[in-house]
Amino acid sequence: MWRAVTSVRDPIIAIGSLSLRASTHYLSTLSGTSTTLEYKDYGDPLKVVVKKEVKIPELKKGEVLVQMLAAPVNPADINTIQGVYAIKPQLPSIPGNEGVGEVMAVKEGETDIMMQPGDRVIPRINAMGTWRTHLVASSTDLIKIPSDIGVVEAATIAVNPATAYRMLKDFVPVKSGETVIQNGANSAVGQAVIQIAASLGLKTVNIVRDRPDISKLKQHLSDLGGTIVVTEEELRNSREVKAVPRPMLALNCVSGRSGTELLRQLAPQGTMVTYGGMSRQPVTVPVGALIFNDISFKGFWMTRWNQQHQHHPAREEMLNNLFHLVRSGALQSPDHTTVPFSDYQLALQNAMPSKGMLGKKQILTFKK
Amino acid sequence: MWRAVTSVRDPIIAIGSLSLRASTHYLSTLSGTSTTLEYKDYGDPLKVVVKKEVKIPELKKGEVLVQMLAAPVNPADINTIQGVYAIKPQLPSIPGNEGVGEVMAVKEGETDIMMQPGDRVIPRINAMGTWRTHLVASSTDLIKIPSDIGVVEAATIAVNPATAYRMLKDFVPVKSGETVIQNGANSAVGQAVIQIAASLGLKTVNIVRDRPDISKLKQHLSDLGGTIVVTEEELRNSREVKAVPRPMLALNCVSGRSGTELLRQLAPQGTMVTYGGMSRQPVTVPVGALIFNDISFKGFWMTRWNQQHQHHPAREEMLNNLFHLVRSGALQSPDHTTVPFSDYQLALQNAMPSKGMLGKKQILTFKK
Repeated sequence: MWRAVTSVRDPIIAIGSLSLRASTHYLSTLSGTSTTLEYKDYGDPLKVVVKKEVKIPELKKGEVLVQMLAAPVNPADINTIQGVYAIKPQLPSIPGNEGVGEVMAVKEGETDIMMQPGDRVIPRINAMGTWRTHLVASSTDLIKIPSDIGVVEAATIAVNPATAYRMLKDFVPVKSGETVIQNGANSAVGQAVIQIAASLGLKTVNIVRDRPDISKLKQHLSDLGGTIVVTEEELRNSREVKAVPRPMLALNCVSGRSGTELLRQLAPQGTMVTYGGMSRQPVTVPVGALIFNDISFKGFWMTRWNQQHQHHPAREEMLNNLFHLVRSGALQSPDHTTVPFSDYQLALQNAMPSKGMLGKKQILTFKK
Repeated sequence: MWRAVTSVRDPIIAIGSLSLRASTHYLSTLSGTSTTLEYKDYGDPLKVVVKKEVKIPELKKGEVLVQMLAAPVNPADINTIQGVYAIKPQLPSIPGNEGVGEVMAVKEGETDIMMQPGDRVIPRINAMGTWRTHLVASSTDLIKIPSDIGVVEAATIAVNPATAYRMLKDFVPVKSGETVIQNGANSAVGQAVIQIAASLGLKTVNIVRDRPDISKLKQHLSDLGGTIVVTEEELRNSREVKAVPRPMLALNCVSGRSGTELLRQLAPQGTMVTYGGMSRQPVTVPVGALIFNDISFKGFWMTRWNQQHQHHPAREEMLNNLFHLVRSGALQSPDHTTVPFSDYQLALQNAMPSKGMLGKKQILTFKK
């Protein structure tokens, strides 16, 4: 499905005091346009997001031209467009927070740019606006990634697997053989939690909502490495759950009643990390869980972590570890459908939750 | 009201290989009885708690005889008797978790006992059963305290001021000039929070429930050193509250709606510590407070801290600091009424919450 990136010998073009490295492909699109999605008002994504052609601006010092290869539609993108997310971009805004692209041209300046045409890059900054065929950005706002990673995996690594990785690393020192429990286990983050936890030797108790094809879903999450998969109804009386060590770490993306059931499973002194509220209900905590069981409640937001670690070595280290898992086959991309960028409205439609459940991850793909 | 402890020259009596140091007062009660409260079933304290005379047992190696001087009726005592507390003592049980007594006799053994007749002591262990005129305990289960501390202050220092002290020290490094916010500010812990915080140079925002004599209560808490005192209704729109630095630490003993209002006042990255649930409602946390504002939620239980620090130097250090505050006048005993031990039923009655509010702290006093 994906054209292999062919290594192109880069011609060097001198423009004033700056020099430009560009791929031959770039030379043909040098004065071209970028097809860009945009919204001028917050609202229903299907109504407010429109497509337009934008002239690609001339590169300034330190900037690179990126051809997008793939960009997912994450729930936070939808909520941002709806105007109900914690971050409200200035309007008009180009949606899309995540994705992978290929560097097409590099404008060198006073400092060397450590990127070459043909390099794969993902955004270093938040809200870059990845739902467009081409973008021009400062090279320092991008992260160069290995080119042997599949395009879908690269496009979806920075938000969901990174969230799973940090939540498993940063809150409770969970050791091999110990248990992590989570709800919304079939979410993109949940699937990454299962796989990363398995690679660390951790047991996982995975809670999902009951549904017609539940046995298929259970099988899928077990195949990913989930130790136990139970429905919310099965949780309390599950012998399997009682047979594993009580978890010190619970990951909550549902909140409401599901969150309360989740925290009841924690060992004394355990921690529940909330990273979502799919039920649209608050987290309700019995007082005794806090006082007598000494349970702690914290939140995690990948966007804040990234802002705090924009140029921190921990970020590259995390990405390298995740790419290593991808290469070894231990971390697969989430259940997804690729949708050509021209069919973006279909992708938006399919990305909206239906009966409070999310379908397959929609991934916009771009022609090169 | 309180007889000064007169220093008594201790006669030494040899009994076998052990020697006994005793006050002259003790010699007269050597074969006496202890008037003891007891309950055989959990239930309404006014019904299940009965008085009985118990022969004082002979001292064994390392044990001391203590004459109780004063013992408070804390909410946890009431809940323990009702059988609704986290700790369920084996029945029959002697109620009373806190209090101060005077050592009357010491039975020395293989190891030296660092206590003398006339020394003031408080329990080191939980659920010692302080509601009795005399008790015999291992000297290692008691903490010797300075004898220049008022009896009421000594009897009430180990639970409520210690809770306030630890919550101000152990969760968030609050610096002079910064703000701590609390609800239930007129509780015994709340009053201690105000005074200890003031001694540390911290501002306090103190939330109380509206009541007929609210201006008198506000004045009282201001006199104790509270920076701002507001009712729950006044909180959201209080200009005074908006004028102080946003708190990083919130102390919650009410939970329910009051707890939710409290957490809304916290600065991003702040912590709410829950140590009570006077509303009998859970703590309800909007998901955004966890994810986007990065608020943490923890619980505190003095009993657990004490168990974890039973012989830890931090415990003596804390008590010494608190006694220092008492001596300097910076930490007063909570609003209280002393009740002769013989009228214990009156004390129990007055200690029960009325319309969800607690009245003055009831303190049982013992004749010497």
